[in-house]
Order: sequence, then structure tokens, then C-alpha cells
Amino acid sequence: MIITDILEYYKEKIELRLKTFLDEKISEAEKISYSSREIMQYIKEFNLRGGKRIRSVLIIMAYKSLGGKNENAIIDIAASAELMQSFLLIHDDIIDDDDLRRGGPTMHRIYAEKYKGCDNPKKFGENMAIIAGDLLASLGNEIISKSAFDEEKKLKLLQKFNKIIKLTGYGEIIDILSGLKTNVTEQDISKMHKLKTAVYTIEGPLHMGAIAAGASDDQLKILSEYAIPLGMAFQLKDDILGLFGSEEKLGKPADSDIKEGKKTLLILKVLENANKEQKELIGNALGNKDITKTELTKVREIIKETGSLSYSENLAEKLVKKAKNAIKTSDFETHGKDFFLEIADYVIKRDY
Amino acid sequence: MIITDILEYYKEKIELRLKTFLDEKISEAEKISYSSREIMQYIKEFNLRGGKRIRSVLIIMAYKSLGGKNENAIIDIAASAELMQSFLLIHDDIIDDDDLRRGGPTMHRIYAEKYKGCDNPKKFGENMAIIAGDLLASLGNEIISKSAFDEEKKLKLLQKFNKIIKLTGYGEIIDILSGLKTNVTEQDISKMHKLKTAVYTIEGPLHMGAIAAGASDDQLKILSEYAIPLGMAFQLKDDILGLFGSEEKLGKPADSDIKEGKKTLLILKVLENANKEQKELIGNALGNKDITKTELTKVREIIKETGSLSYSENLAEKLVKKAKNAIKTSDFETHGKDFFLEIADYVIKRDY
Repeated sequence: MIITDILEYYKEKIELRLKTFLDEKISEAEKISYSSREIMQYIKEFNLRGGKRIRSVLIIMAYKSLGGKNENAIIDIAASAELMQSFLLIHDDIIDDDDLRRGGPTMHRIYAEKYKGCDNPKKFGENMAIIAGDLLASLGNEIISKSAFDEEKKLKLLQKFNKIIKLTGYGEIIDILSGLKTNVTEQDISKMHKLKTAVYTIEGPLHMGAIAAGASDDQLKILSEYAIPLGMAFQLKDDILGLFGSEEKLGKPADSDIKEGKKTLLILKVLENANKEQKELIGNALGNKDITKTELTKVREIIKETGSLSYSENLAEKLVKKAKNAIKTSDFETHGKDFFLEIADYVIKRDY
Repeated sequence: MIITDILEYYKEKIELRLKTFLDEKISEAEKISYSSREIMQYIKEFNLRGGKRIRSVLIIMAYKSLGGKNENAIIDIAASAELMQSFLLIHDDIIDDDDLRRGGPTMHRIYAEKYKGCDNPKKFGENMAIIAGDLLASLGNEIISKSAFDEEKKLKLLQKFNKIIKLTGYGEIIDILSGLKTNVTEQDISKMHKLKTAVYTIEGPLHMGAIAAGASDDQLKILSEYAIPLGMAFQLKDDILGLFGSEEKLGKPADSDIKEGKKTLLILKVLENANKEQKELIGNALGNKDITKTELTKVREIIKETGSLSYSENLAEKLVKKAKNAIKTSDFETHGKDFFLEIADYVIKRDY
């Protein structure tokens, strides 16, 4: 089976489950107040707006690769990862002051727009979005605790779920602080990628699926050896797509990283290797909310010319190779191995 | 035993447990990065800064009243309620833009002050505080999931923990929206008090303790009949203390509710019964960040003169009576009954 087909196949199942779960929550909320119903509606819309569902699929495939058979139960765990993702995105979007997410307005923008007649719609929107995120964290815990796995597994899954939130939070802090520093190092970036992406997007989901399947500690360790380098590669690819990808496919503008002044490896390396004039141009572009298309094209050219793009591309490929090796030498069954190897290739090849 | 002695006795035990738990988390965080350690240090300081620990004590006493014997295990559950409380306070303080909490700076102020040299310390502080809250939610789940209760109980406790967060979130939304409305009704206020205080401060903790003790559904129901009116009374008393209490004992200024323009029952009733001149004075005071001491004294006088203060006081007493009746007619053992009755009186009599 081709990876994009698997993604497509499970995406539908996960979204159906998210829909039924959130419809139940809307009915619950309706009994409490108009405003509770309203926020749950927005939460549902935000969750169903799309996204790659890559975390979900990793959970399901890790589960199946390690012998798990209860597809309905694992879909609940996959849904918990999507709820966590929405929770973290909603809070991240407040932090980064972003307007657009998954091709629609961010949660704080939804509320700011809806209540635009109030004194301070921006602040109001942010306040509501803080709570929306908190609610989603609670819903993620809820769906795991009510899933069909036995109590021991559910507890382990809940521990993992909350540990992922904690580590992602640590990564986010490093990210925010790196925005203040002028001398961000490759090590800072690497640590942030490890926590915010490798643990969060790859290792965490694989471990959730594996725990649900009753994996041994040894198996979890192999999955970490695969997941961490793969996750770092995933982030590098994300940063490349964030600047060189298609706006339409990504569902967000391809200039947002530059406008935010995000310290990516692409930027770090270009600043290392650029000449004085190029450095000045990049320096002016970073964090410039009013950057023009021409300036952006110039930034892209410099990143290519200085070899910064190929540095990130090569590093990503090296990391993917390392990840694949961990799986090749494992004693996982062939079906599982093939899946993990294919996912690794997909990370590099995807265009959204 | 006098209730204040019980509060004092357990306060110390809970704070000791919070201290050892958060010290462990600091050691964990230290291995990740300087910034992770830093946020955990602030989280520890914030948690140990005080507070009445009333939720904790309700958990412990409900547990013991219903025959629970494992004091060390229940202290972990009590600590989870304190972690939740800090989580919600930190997010609330961002939402309300408050500077002071528990006699010290709010979490977003700590960070804004520490990094005051950065571009936008206020926004930076809020961003870090959003994450601090998220981390605390995760820690609350963690300490329950690792407590010494059996798996079935831990799962039920985790479900309750997350349900409390959800309902409190719904209450907070009503609260924020009531800030936009000019025509807030007594019913709106009552619904908000039910969710934000009765469920959160009284029913939730009592249920957590009772679940840990293996309570029956009938017993949980009696506790709800006691907890909901008592919680409503608790909030009325809080609003009274918020305007008429001692700043020193409360650890926050006694004008913050007025400055925020908080829609309390005190305000609703005074606006119903005041004459034109008084109404104008109250209207100007609400939400006025620069209110003078003289104006505030005048507001207090009007609230007394119009009978609004005694309306809230009487309603609180009526609710406490209702709460006590639910316990009196229950089949709880004498020791437990006495405790619940005493707590009910304490809610009305406390001065902080």
C-alpha cells in the first residue's frame, strides 16, 4: 500500500470519529449554555478543517505493525492526538499572533471576528482561544480514558499523552526564547526540533500506538531510535516547505516563517555563509511583516546560492537514513518494517 | 477538630508533597534545557506561594469521611487539585490582565519583568504563562496517574479531573462573555457561579476524595446536593470579601473586582435598587482602573445602603442551610457529617 493511500484511508476514519465525538460534546455543552455550545462548535470546525493527520496514522500503523487488532479502539487514541494537535496549535497561534491556520482563521481570529463590536476584539479572541485550547487538552484525556483498551494500557497511554504535552511545552519555550536571542546556535535549533517535532510528531505517536499494542521496552527504544532522527528531518522539511512550498497545498502563506523571524536552520546557515550585502537583505527581511514578493524571492535565491538549502536537504536525508537503519536492524515483522521505511521516505518527499 | 486547624494541618502536608513533586520535575527539566528548569522553578514558587488549599482539604476530608485510609495516596490527589488550581489561575490572570496573585506577581508578570529588555515584555510574559498553565495541566494528570490507588480508581479520578477542567472552562467562557454584555441577569451569574465555583471548588474536590474512597453513586449524589449550594455561597462570600475584605489577608487589592468591572450579584442588585445618582456613581466606578479610595468607599456605602450587601449575605446563608440539610439527612457516619457541617459554616464565616 502506498503511504499516501494509507494516509487518505485513515484520515477519513479519524475524521469520522472526531466528528461523532465532538458532536457528542456539542450536545453535552448545549445543556450548559449557549456559549459552551458555541465554543464546542468552533472546536469541531477547527478539528475537521483538515491537516495531514500524520500523527494519527503513525499511531494506528505502529499499533498494527506491532500486532494490535482492535481498530476501533486505536482510532480513539489517534483522535486524542488530533485533539492534542488542535490544542497546541490554538495556543501556538495566539503566541505567534497568526491569523491563518489550515486554510481558515485561527481560533482567536474566529472569536475576534465574531465579537468584533466589543471593546477589544483582539484580546477577547485570545482569551477565548486560551480556553478553547484548555478544553481540547481535557477532551484528549477524556477520549483516551473512555477508550476500549484495558485499564493498565489506558493509564500508560494517558501518562504518555501528558508527557508529550510537557515535552512539547519545553520545546515551545526554547522556541519563544530563541526569538529573543540574536545568537541562536545550531544546537538550540536542534534541541527545539527534537522536542517540538521529533518527540511530538513522530516518537510520541509511535509510542502511543506501540503502548496500545502492548510493546516491550526494547521495542519502544527501537522506535525512539527511528523516530528522533526522522522527526528532526521532518522539521527540516517543514522549514523548507515553509519557504519554498506551495501556499495552496500548505494552507498557509509561504512567507509566514520569514515574517515571524523564525530561526530555522535555513536562516542560521544562510547568515553564516552570506556576504555582507546578502546578510543585510536577510536581516531586513526577518520579522518584516510588510515584506514584498520581490524581497521574498531574493531571500529564497540567497538561501539557494549560499548552499543553505542544500545543507538542510542533505542533513534531512542523512537523518532519514539513520532512522531507516534503526528499523532495518530491528526484529519487527516485515509488514511493520516496510511501513516504517516508507514513512521515512515520505517525510523527505512530501510537498505539503 | 476546628476547621482552621484541619486546614492548617493538611496545608503543610500538601505543600510538602507539592514541593517534593515539583523538585523532581525541576531535576527532570534541568536535563532538557535551562529554560525548562527556569519555568519549573517559577511553577514551583507559584504553587508554594500559598492559597487556602481548601480544595485539597476537601479532597482529603471527603476521602477520610467515606472510610479512605491511605493518607499518602490521597495527598497526591490533593496535590493534583492544587496543580489544577495554579494552571487555571495562571491562565485566568492572563485573561483578566491581573498583576498580583497570592501576594506576588502573576506568572505573566514574572516573565515580563525577568525579560523586560525584550521587544514586547507584556506579550512575551503572556506567551510564557500560557505554556506554564499547559504544563501544570499535564503535571496534574501525571501525579494522579502515578499515585498509589488501583488502576480503576486512577482512571475514574483522571476522568473527574478532566471533567472539572472542562466545566470550569465553560464557566470561564460565560464569565468572559458577561464582561461584554450590559444586561447580565441573575441567572447568568448563578450559572457562572455554579460552574466556576460550585463545581470547581466544592463538588469536584469532594467527588475526587469520594471516588478515591470508593464511594457509591448515591453518595456522590448526596455530595452534589451539598456541594452545589455551598459552592454558590462560597462565591457570594468571595465577592463580598473581594470588596469589603482585608487586602492583607486576601493577598490581593480589595478594589480589583470593581476595577475589572466584574459582574457580581452585589453589583447586579445595587444597580437594580440604586437611585439615579447612585447608579451613575457605580456605573463610573465599574471598570475604572484609576478609581480613587474615596470613590471606592462611596461604592461600598451604596452597596450597603441599597440592601445589596444584605441580599447577597442572606442568599449565602440560605444556600449554606440547604447544603447542610443534604448532609443532615444522609447516612454518612457522624465524623464525616460533622466535618461537612463545619466546612459549610466556615464558608460563611471566613474572612479570607
